[in-house]
Amino acid sequence: MQRYFIPPEQLGEHSALLTGDDAHHAVRVMRMEAGDCVIVSDGVSRAALVRAAAVTPSRVEADIVEWLPMNGEPRWSVTVAQSLPKGDKMELVIQKGTEIGAAAFIPFQSERMIVQYDSKKEAKRIERWSKIAKEAAEQAHRSRIPPVAAVQSWRGLLGEIAGYDLVLFCYEKENEAEQAGLRAAIHAFRSSHRALSDNELKVMLIVGPEGGFTEREAAEAEAAGAVLAGLGKRILRTETAALVGLACLMYESGEMGGV
Amino acid sequence: MQRYFIPPEQLGEHSALLTGDDAHHAVRVMRMEAGDCVIVSDGVSRAALVRAAAVTPSRVEADIVEWLPMNGEPRWSVTVAQSLPKGDKMELVIQKGTEIGAAAFIPFQSERMIVQYDSKKEAKRIERWSKIAKEAAEQAHRSRIPPVAAVQSWRGLLGEIAGYDLVLFCYEKENEAEQAGLRAAIHAFRSSHRALSDNELKVMLIVGPEGGFTEREAAEAEAAGAVLAGLGKRILRTETAALVGLACLMYESGEMGGV
Repeated sequence: MQRYFIPPEQLGEHSALLTGDDAHHAVRVMRMEAGDCVIVSDGVSRAALVRAAAVTPSRVEADIVEWLPMNGEPRWSVTVAQSLPKGDKMELVIQKGTEIGAAAFIPFQSERMIVQYDSKKEAKRIERWSKIAKEAAEQAHRSRIPPVAAVQSWRGLLGEIAGYDLVLFCYEKENEAEQAGLRAAIHAFRSSHRALSDNELKVMLIVGPEGGFTEREAAEAEAAGAVLAGLGKRILRTETAALVGLACLMYESGEMGGV
Repeated sequence: MQRYFIPPEQLGEHSALLTGDDAHHAVRVMRMEAGDCVIVSDGVSRAALVRAAAVTPSRVEADIVEWLPMNGEPRWSVTVAQSLPKGDKMELVIQKGTEIGAAAFIPFQSERMIVQYDSKKEAKRIERWSKIAKEAAEQAHRSRIPPVAAVQSWRGLLGEIAGYDLVLFCYEKENEAEQAGLRAAIHAFRSSHRALSDNELKVMLIVGPEGGFTEREAAEAEAAGAVLAGLGKRILRTETAALVGLACLMYESGEMGGV
């Protein structure tokens, strides 16, 4: 069934209101008529099955049929920190990352970043990225929309590390033998933190730009508490690395059974 | 270091020859000069470090410096069978799937496929997909180029199942409780097939089109020996499902350590 995230103030105790793009999509694209049902959520704590009562292309008033459980979220909260990639790759990371189950996105700047960061364009880009996250969350039946943070500096990102249980820094050392793979790194963490509840694990996955991280950045991340982890011996493009790391974290945390 | 897959007959005992697009890329894009080194491979069984001797934009003659091990391939051989998706999504599946480590790709037709299959365009599409696989394999430092098969019928695909050790059919049953997740399905297989060497496991991952598989297709795949497996409770787009399933298989098989 079609889902829409609406502003919390438009989701009342007995009724819901779709406006703007959502109303347009429901009426013009999905051809909604009075009597049709959709799912609406405030993207934070409430979701409901609602039935359309009054329908116009700019405004749909609907009645609450039933409150629904907010159970579209993964057990682990995984924030994807992605150094700004070229072109529209950040859009791919946000769209696919939202489907796979990312809890949030933090774009950040790093030394070997190829793209020229333009702070004047930032508001517009964050707005666009947030819209992509909303649409992907609706399509994937997520209960929440993963927020896209403002672009952080490298120092700013390092300062965030302490707030997470586990921070995985995707990195391939020159001498592969020294480097633990992602799975080895997660297993080492889990066996040394048995007291941590798996259900509340807060993880950050840090992915470098096309040019990779510098040795100094790797050392600084490690000093701040991140664990260096490789994604295997094939060289992944930056946007692929984020999605592979995220998929593996979902797999490891039991989203696909087998725990 | 830059890598090129060249035809086997152009990789001799003491010398290698780059022609066509490869020579153009080396000379015009990478600005190769005599004395520069690259890695060449026949994409099947041999790879070597070579040094350019005679350079023109259409032809680079190079001397073998050192034969290299063919060690860019994953332990498990995973074939991605993807029902033809819309637009250029098959290109994304082949590009990213090659990076992640797919052994081969089999495009196939299924009932709810949205795209109109056009057999007259097939040769051209396979050629384009194969080129994408070659370029992604070079970029990812693979030892082999994953072949892209001709488009199979649904019956044709079912006939392939018996040739694999494990066939995972990505499918979400209406009643989620009946459905094993991918990880549960793999663990069940491994515990009931302990005699099989992990290093030689031949796996097929079958992914449906945008409209999903029909119940009948799921039943037919199961009857042919496939295991139905879910990728979690979020709804993944078809191209995301292929990449997530493949990433999880690489993770499970030990490509990221921790075995």
